[in-house]
Amino acid sequence: MSLDTLTTPAALVDVNRMNRNIARMQQRLDALGVRFRPHVKTTKCEPIVRAQIAAGAQGITVSTLKEAEQFFEKGIGDIVYAVGMAPGKLQQALALRRRGCDLKIIVDNLRCAEAIAAFGREHHEAFEVWIELDVDGHRSGIAPEDDLLIAVGRALADGGMTLGGVLAHAGSSYEYDTHEALVRIAEQERAGTVRGAQRLRAAGLRCPVVSIGSTPTALCAEHLEGVTEVRAGVYVMFDLVMHNVGVCETSDIALSVLTTVIGHQEEKGWAIVDAGWMAMSRDRGTQRQKRDFGYGLVCNEAGDVLGDYLMSSANQEHGIVSRTGAPDKNIAGRFPVGTRLRILPNHACATGAQHPEYQALTEKGTLESWPRFYGW
Amino acid sequence: MSLDTLTTPAALVDVNRMNRNIARMQQRLDALGVRFRPHVKTTKCEPIVRAQIAAGAQGITVSTLKEAEQFFEKGIGDIVYAVGMAPGKLQQALALRRRGCDLKIIVDNLRCAEAIAAFGREHHEAFEVWIELDVDGHRSGIAPEDDLLIAVGRALADGGMTLGGVLAHAGSSYEYDTHEALVRIAEQERAGTVRGAQRLRAAGLRCPVVSIGSTPTALCAEHLEGVTEVRAGVYVMFDLVMHNVGVCETSDIALSVLTTVIGHQEEKGWAIVDAGWMAMSRDRGTQRQKRDFGYGLVCNEAGDVLGDYLMSSANQEHGIVSRTGAPDKNIAGRFPVGTRLRILPNHACATGAQHPEYQALTEKGTLESWPRFYGW
Repeated sequence: MSLDTLTTPAALVDVNRMNRNIARMQQRLDALGVRFRPHVKTTKCEPIVRAQIAAGAQGITVSTLKEAEQFFEKGIGDIVYAVGMAPGKLQQALALRRRGCDLKIIVDNLRCAEAIAAFGREHHEAFEVWIELDVDGHRSGIAPEDDLLIAVGRALADGGMTLGGVLAHAGSSYEYDTHEALVRIAEQERAGTVRGAQRLRAAGLRCPVVSIGSTPTALCAEHLEGVTEVRAGVYVMFDLVMHNVGVCETSDIALSVLTTVIGHQEEKGWAIVDAGWMAMSRDRGTQRQKRDFGYGLVCNEAGDVLGDYLMSSANQEHGIVSRTGAPDKNIAGRFPVGTRLRILPNHACATGAQHPEYQALTEKGTLESWPRFYGW
Repeated sequence: MSLDTLTTPAALVDVNRMNRNIARMQQRLDALGVRFRPHVKTTKCEPIVRAQIAAGAQGITVSTLKEAEQFFEKGIGDIVYAVGMAPGKLQQALALRRRGCDLKIIVDNLRCAEAIAAFGREHHEAFEVWIELDVDGHRSGIAPEDDLLIAVGRALADGGMTLGGVLAHAGSSYEYDTHEALVRIAEQERAGTVRGAQRLRAAGLRCPVVSIGSTPTALCAEHLEGVTEVRAGVYVMFDLVMHNVGVCETSDIALSVLTTVIGHQEEKGWAIVDAGWMAMSRDRGTQRQKRDFGYGLVCNEAGDVLGDYLMSSANQEHGIVSRTGAPDKNIAGRFPVGTRLRILPNHACATGAQHPEYQALTEKGTLESWPRFYGW
């Protein structure tokens, strides 16, 4: 299979760009003196995670226990499941640990902490638990100054569990688009997480791991004093949301969707392509950012951006490609039926998830099929 | 496996509601005197398509050639692939026809029509081709009055292909929310498609099939004179978009996502659940409708709507459930950690596609796993 004969739509990975992105993040975190634990929810794809580990990553972060199971089966044992533990999933976590997986789970409330401790004691298993901190109000976690933090720490320690550390994710970093603002939110994430660790230690509780991370803060933090590890995921592909945040160029985006022109509405300046939201995902993450890219930015088959052409609208298996501003009445001449285009996505995690495999364009110019998995 | 022990998130199908939806559409189209060819892109799931056929459906509509291949392997041979044919996919279509599949393909431009005819002659295959009409300006197709229609018809007929009919889809019907407007767009879809067929026949070309359809127009058309078949897909599940359009009640929605509460931010009135956009999809189809349901409407585990609680925000594996209006400061008391909720989705096609299987709650109260497929 070559790029010319690949059935469309297909999720293409430019391996050269991907490797550059992997090296950039690893070099940066090495220079900052912290371990790197990439979030594999972006790709759920073994060859990509292998490349991250080969470059220096230590352990992985997952968003589902299925990811933990799949990667543990591939020989990766150092795993943090970075979504608050549901008591109903403890049996599944226990089974992984019994098989030898060094699985860490997280918690941000007393009820779950007590449920973990009770289940752990019942099964003679000292789960390693990290406490989730809220450093920016965007989602889950305990505020570093909240006394609940100490109460949860004690419930785990007194309950016989291993209190392994604290973890935060400054998800609000996606809402900024200047370097100054990103430096500020990165410092807020670092300082808040370190503060939580200090409070636990001052209360006589152990807290060896101080884990933070998001792609924007990892790339913008000025120092990471007190932090032991960073998690980031989308950097491996980058996407248009990250472009708008200001941490990559479009020429860094390693994921695109290959599509074929199947028709036109010439008066409207539309080319109709065979990739719709099923191939791009419904993610409209750039909608509220400084530039709205619709469902994606149009490139030629070689991957060069073609200017102001966007996938402006999408149905399940149809995309509408049009020029920003005045309609291109010559669109049928510019992109005749059969023309193959690549569309850069808003959000690499969401777009990748729509595809059973990536088609990897290797640095040697060959094409390899890299399977990914989905579900729970 | 029972509902209590099912791992979350999971895509639940209420089989009783689904069967009621199937019966409603079939009875309606029987009364209107047309054949029904359901669009299976909504579910891509054999037991559901079998139920549609058992109720009286004749043939299926697909959005990808993979759907055609998968359902042909299950013994369903009468298939229309309702996305404009890309010349590069003709080999795949030919292979299906050679295996005995009665696959129909569609076209809306001369270049594709000529490519189909050339390829067909080269391979001694008279493809059955339907011409796609544009009845509402929303996407693809040839306007019924455009002379291009006759030119494409002649290119196919003179090229030795079988001109099987015309096909239209009034996708803009999703934009209305009154019965009067839906009756009007349904009549526009019917009249425009019949007009296209009449023009082809007047030009001496055959046009046995006159195929129209969308869920809203199928449910609102006052008569279907001149139409031979209707296609509709989402009616089998219904969803919040269809609720806002006005063609179903929330108590008709057969698909929901089962999720577990994993934490809270009490001051904000948030419950955090373990279903995010990966489980719900990124579809925000109600955003511009009369009621914006966020990422979905919250029900208890039994499936009863709980009032004004929505999934107001979503990350990949986290959803935020909150009350519309003033924050519910008692949300942790109302939905304690471990509480299981069901979320009705904006768009059943998009939400289903995120899941490797449906968990079907049968009329007998048992739970069955019904696999679905994805990819191209």
